[in-house]
Amino acid sequence: MLDIKEPTLLLDKEKCIRNIDRMVNKASRHGVILRPHFKTHAAADIADWFLERGVRSIAVSSVQMADYFHHNNWEDITVAFPVNILEMDRINKIAGKISLNLMVENTETTRFLSSNLLSPTGIFLKIDTGYHRTGIDPDNVRLIDDIIQIIKSSPNMRFRGFLAHAGHTYQAGTKQEILDIHETSLRIMNGLRNTYINDHPDIELSLGDTPSCSVADDFTGLTEIRPGNFVFYDLKQESLGSCSIDDIAVAMACPVVAVHKDRNEVIIYGGGIHFSKDSLISDGGTIYGKLVSHDKHYSWDRPLEGAVLKSLSQEHGILRINQPDLLGSIRPGQILMFLPVHSCLTSNLMRKYITLDGDIILRV
Amino acid sequence: MLDIKEPTLLLDKEKCIRNIDRMVNKASRHGVILRPHFKTHAAADIADWFLERGVRSIAVSSVQMADYFHHNNWEDITVAFPVNILEMDRINKIAGKISLNLMVENTETTRFLSSNLLSPTGIFLKIDTGYHRTGIDPDNVRLIDDIIQIIKSSPNMRFRGFLAHAGHTYQAGTKQEILDIHETSLRIMNGLRNTYINDHPDIELSLGDTPSCSVADDFTGLTEIRPGNFVFYDLKQESLGSCSIDDIAVAMACPVVAVHKDRNEVIIYGGGIHFSKDSLISDGGTIYGKLVSHDKHYSWDRPLEGAVLKSLSQEHGILRINQPDLLGSIRPGQILMFLPVHSCLTSNLMRKYITLDGDIILRV
Repeated sequence: MLDIKEPTLLLDKEKCIRNIDRMVNKASRHGVILRPHFKTHAAADIADWFLERGVRSIAVSSVQMADYFHHNNWEDITVAFPVNILEMDRINKIAGKISLNLMVENTETTRFLSSNLLSPTGIFLKIDTGYHRTGIDPDNVRLIDDIIQIIKSSPNMRFRGFLAHAGHTYQAGTKQEILDIHETSLRIMNGLRNTYINDHPDIELSLGDTPSCSVADDFTGLTEIRPGNFVFYDLKQESLGSCSIDDIAVAMACPVVAVHKDRNEVIIYGGGIHFSKDSLISDGGTIYGKLVSHDKHYSWDRPLEGAVLKSLSQEHGILRINQPDLLGSIRPGQILMFLPVHSCLTSNLMRKYITLDGDIILRV
Repeated sequence: MLDIKEPTLLLDKEKCIRNIDRMVNKASRHGVILRPHFKTHAAADIADWFLERGVRSIAVSSVQMADYFHHNNWEDITVAFPVNILEMDRINKIAGKISLNLMVENTETTRFLSSNLLSPTGIFLKIDTGYHRTGIDPDNVRLIDDIIQIIKSSPNMRFRGFLAHAGHTYQAGTKQEILDIHETSLRIMNGLRNTYINDHPDIELSLGDTPSCSVADDFTGLTEIRPGNFVFYDLKQESLGSCSIDDIAVAMACPVVAVHKDRNEVIIYGGGIHFSKDSLISDGGTIYGKLVSHDKHYSWDRPLEGAVLKSLSQEHGILRINQPDLLGSIRPGQILMFLPVHSCLTSNLMRKYITLDGDIILRV
């Protein structure tokens, strides 16, 4: 029996494993490698659940996280973030020991790596398929050629292929919009492969974001997919249509500290330093989480109608409840449970998970 | 010489001490006790700078933080958050050892404390002076009387007085609005004192939020003030008029990982897990930080025109720069510095400070 006294991030292992299985099976069905992005969970114990299902390749978002998973026996790691050349020493410490892949998008960084990498390292060119955060414009053939040239003439760089992240799927309004973005990415990436495959017969294509990988069923030409958030999902993904509400594998358990019936509000111990300030437009306003019902073992069910976290300050959360019966039943000292808007940021803040069986899982 | 390789929270000790001195002197000038809220810095080493200036009373936002400062020799602590009755055991462990004050706002929690407190503990009634987050409506005389009655008949509860937090100053558009809110709070609090002073000649009034305490010069009738954020300040406070840009005592140092001149953007290693997702409307849009110039010792100066953090994802920050010369001078591997929007959340995420002299200061 869990004994919850403060804001606590609970993990439903069964739902999580189901999410992992679904993506493992999907990748296998389509003949692509699943290289899950581990930044969402960032925990060696959860990584083991992937290992048990045959996953051997992963993506991470920092050199520090690569180091953590390297020390937890992962030997094929892509740092899916533009190389920070200030971390060259740390990169070299890992590169000599495992199959490490880095991502570049400009000649300066590529030249720096060429001069400073001490061990063979895979290099992907980051392509901008429309998100416009990082990446090379796929029409900028000259830049692509220049970078590949630097890689080819470097003793320790191994050109692996092209990598993209269609993060603009997170702004999609409908499933069809996600599919349209994904099809564009596929077209761009396959176009690049066709251009470069003669000179580089082993060229790889790596694509991945949770909305596309969850919704799409066409992975033509891809070597691997790199979704991350799917391990937990969250309200944002549910709103995009990437998952159903029952797939969300983490929830926050928070104590009630005040009930204000006069304004239909309940104050919980649980704020921006627990949930994060990421929000969502839902139920006609900005929300930071949805109240779910739960049983005495803290196994949670679906959102309760008209009960949303409408604002967060540092430690306080304000829950608005438009159901008088529900509101009337809530007392200080009660634990309420909430689905988070963005599980990546919530779990980063909470630093550990408690499973419904009471196991503690620490993050990096 | 600092050797910065990843997102780093720098602390300008001189500015910080100046902020502390200013508030210590202001409290002294007005004859009120300064009970600073330590949730912003949450670090024993920074707490020492207050101690050296005669501060002995503090506020914190959780029992855990009370415990941390108790173990760092602070002996007069108010937990300025509605009592979470699930933490009764932890509260009792601290209450017996120091002068602990708790805050209540309803009869249920007060009754629970009455039955469960094992050592003498100060109790403040939280009053809602207009923020409408927590607190008792000051016109609800019956509820106030009921709670005081429970406190008076309890062996270990000591009625201290009334406490309020005018958090709605953070939504103020002008200094005058902050002053108006503050005057309303003062009027409400002094009204309550006048009502209850005959029965409770030692009744105390505790008020505090950084905007009011920074801007106002009338603290009539108050026993103590409880500002917190002023220790660092931030862009939000500067936008409210609580401080000048030169008072902001923390800044984020972040490596550049990509430059996209075609769209006037620089990508930094520094995202929502470093800055937090708290934003501000400024320069005609939503911003998450402002670029400042700095010297080779990372001592920073004022914001550079037309250079704002326009969006953050988990680890990436997108800096928009409308000055071609500035943009043209930025290279991958360079360190850029940013003033944060909300220093409380940024420092909570970063977990430690590096002073400009290279000292490492850890948080709770």
